[in-house]
Amino acid sequence: MPASHGLRRRHALLLASAALAAPRVARAQGADPLPSWRDGPRRRALLDFVAAVTTEGGPDFVPPGARIATFDNDGCLWVEQPIYTQFIFAFDRIRELAPQHPEWQQDPLLRAAIAGDIAGASAQGVEGLLRLAGVAQAGNSPEEFQRIATQWLASARDPKWGRPYTSLIYQPMLEVLSFLRSKGFTTFIVSGGGVEFVRTFSAETYGIPPHQVVGSSFALTPGEQDGRITLTREPKVDFVDDGPGKPVGIARHIGQRPIAAFGNSDGDYQMLRYATEGPGRRFGMLVHHDDAAREYAYDRDSHTGRLAKAMEEAPRRGWQLVSMREDWSRVFP
Amino acid sequence: MPASHGLRRRHALLLASAALAAPRVARAQGADPLPSWRDGPRRRALLDFVAAVTTEGGPDFVPPGARIATFDNDGCLWVEQPIYTQFIFAFDRIRELAPQHPEWQQDPLLRAAIAGDIAGASAQGVEGLLRLAGVAQAGNSPEEFQRIATQWLASARDPKWGRPYTSLIYQPMLEVLSFLRSKGFTTFIVSGGGVEFVRTFSAETYGIPPHQVVGSSFALTPGEQDGRITLTREPKVDFVDDGPGKPVGIARHIGQRPIAAFGNSDGDYQMLRYATEGPGRRFGMLVHHDDAAREYAYDRDSHTGRLAKAMEEAPRRGWQLVSMREDWSRVFP
Repeated sequence: MPASHGLRRRHALLLASAALAAPRVARAQGADPLPSWRDGPRRRALLDFVAAVTTEGGPDFVPPGARIATFDNDGCLWVEQPIYTQFIFAFDRIRELAPQHPEWQQDPLLRAAIAGDIAGASAQGVEGLLRLAGVAQAGNSPEEFQRIATQWLASARDPKWGRPYTSLIYQPMLEVLSFLRSKGFTTFIVSGGGVEFVRTFSAETYGIPPHQVVGSSFALTPGEQDGRITLTREPKVDFVDDGPGKPVGIARHIGQRPIAAFGNSDGDYQMLRYATEGPGRRFGMLVHHDDAAREYAYDRDSHTGRLAKAMEEAPRRGWQLVSMREDWSRVFP
Repeated sequence: MPASHGLRRRHALLLASAALAAPRVARAQGADPLPSWRDGPRRRALLDFVAAVTTEGGPDFVPPGARIATFDNDGCLWVEQPIYTQFIFAFDRIRELAPQHPEWQQDPLLRAAIAGDIAGASAQGVEGLLRLAGVAQAGNSPEEFQRIATQWLASARDPKWGRPYTSLIYQPMLEVLSFLRSKGFTTFIVSGGGVEFVRTFSAETYGIPPHQVVGSSFALTPGEQDGRITLTREPKVDFVDDGPGKPVGIARHIGQRPIAAFGNSDGDYQMLRYATEGPGRRFGMLVHHDDAAREYAYDRDSHTGRLAKAMEEAPRRGWQLVSMREDWSRVFP
């Protein structure tokens, strides 16, 4: 069996097991679909919204085909501090490849990444991350990239918790995903991160298949080698799915306006507006990281996952501002 | 209820009814999932493939999450002669708007479209069509475009049959879609046509939700007006999902290599190769339009849906070349 065949089968098995895992969560929840959410206005607002749009004959009923819910990934479904996980992946990869690329020392961003200078390497924000990620994996096929990212995710550990990054996901948000799916919603990730990176773990980790992940992307060049069609990832970002790009990514990829959107930073501001400015009953939710004891506490002064404008406007836009400290009885699975 | 709300609800109801319709087809088929396919090598090859990849423990088993099947639309799922339907839509729209745009007479392609000169207006192929479509609908939001296209599809009639274009779909291919879905496949349209156009009818017509449609696209510009997020369709094609673009569109949008692909023209050649060059058991099928009595007969000399290279290479690549005349006991529902 060629390696790529083995990878495909392994990946496919993960997808299948993820598909099976989702109902198990729902069943285990029994009467309470959100056991990790403390009773309070945020939890009640979500339950009320779902009841309203799924009550046939009710004034707010939305048929299943239009029950579209979108979720940011970094800081909404998994930990994004001290820097975005994809950044750490890119740093590790760049350090691994640096000896073969002495010319990288000429580039301040690359030099910072090689030196492990997080502040310097992240100074250009999401676009800088994507450029580093592009440089680190340029010339690969999507399947080769998937293999590299899957291997990294299996072996890398977050230094604070000593656990794989894919276990640093928010149990209350997993419950929201399962709950919405059990109510006929189709759940999407709409991430500023690279779409191919998020797709390597979305099915196994969140029960969201690769085609329901929208994200930033690199140019792909089609070609042919050894009598086979090839696709080559270029070190050129061709779409940034962040901020004003999120409604564009949603319109292009999903083709329907979400009726519910979940985020945690100003990068999700336009997505939440796009979802909640549509007609009929809508729902917007922001996770506020105010829990230094169990996770992190940050908002308007954070370089990663800055939350200011969206938080200020949340009350008048009717968005639910979740307090991680007050609303979540547990953080991780 | 604002008009856009009504449209959203109507669209959503269509999606819901489409979702319900699919199992009804499968149930009605009883023991034979492909009643409009005559017994023969093409039908048997499809049944054998599906049996092989769905037999647990078998050497070719593929878990449901990796059962990805992609279908071209024009000429594979619905009629594409004498010209692509989206072309006719663009012509009608351009004629409607022409009095407000005297400058269009300066452009040979637009002038041909206004004059109803099909040969002149289609001389630049898919890219020309997309440019005409872009000009005809530039400045709209995706939701406004959806409304215009939905209205047109409801009222326009194909002159040969006097029927709506969405009824000129191939019953045998509807059966393939339903059959594959009943076997755990996820079915996608991968069309050279504009993704937003195909999405207006894919759910109702094929049971394929908007987010499972990949297609060519126009640039979308985000903005703000009257305190609301806007998206504006620009008259600029930013992705051509045809020929070598189809594997790119698949990798970007679906994120998995299909294990089965269905097409009918050289525009599908790369998609069929991309699918069937993957490891493990694979399936490629081309619909050959050889039925002048019931539909049309065309291949290598046709401007629309040209089929030459893909047909020549079909035998050595193991692709099934379907004879519409011999293999299909009926053409339309």
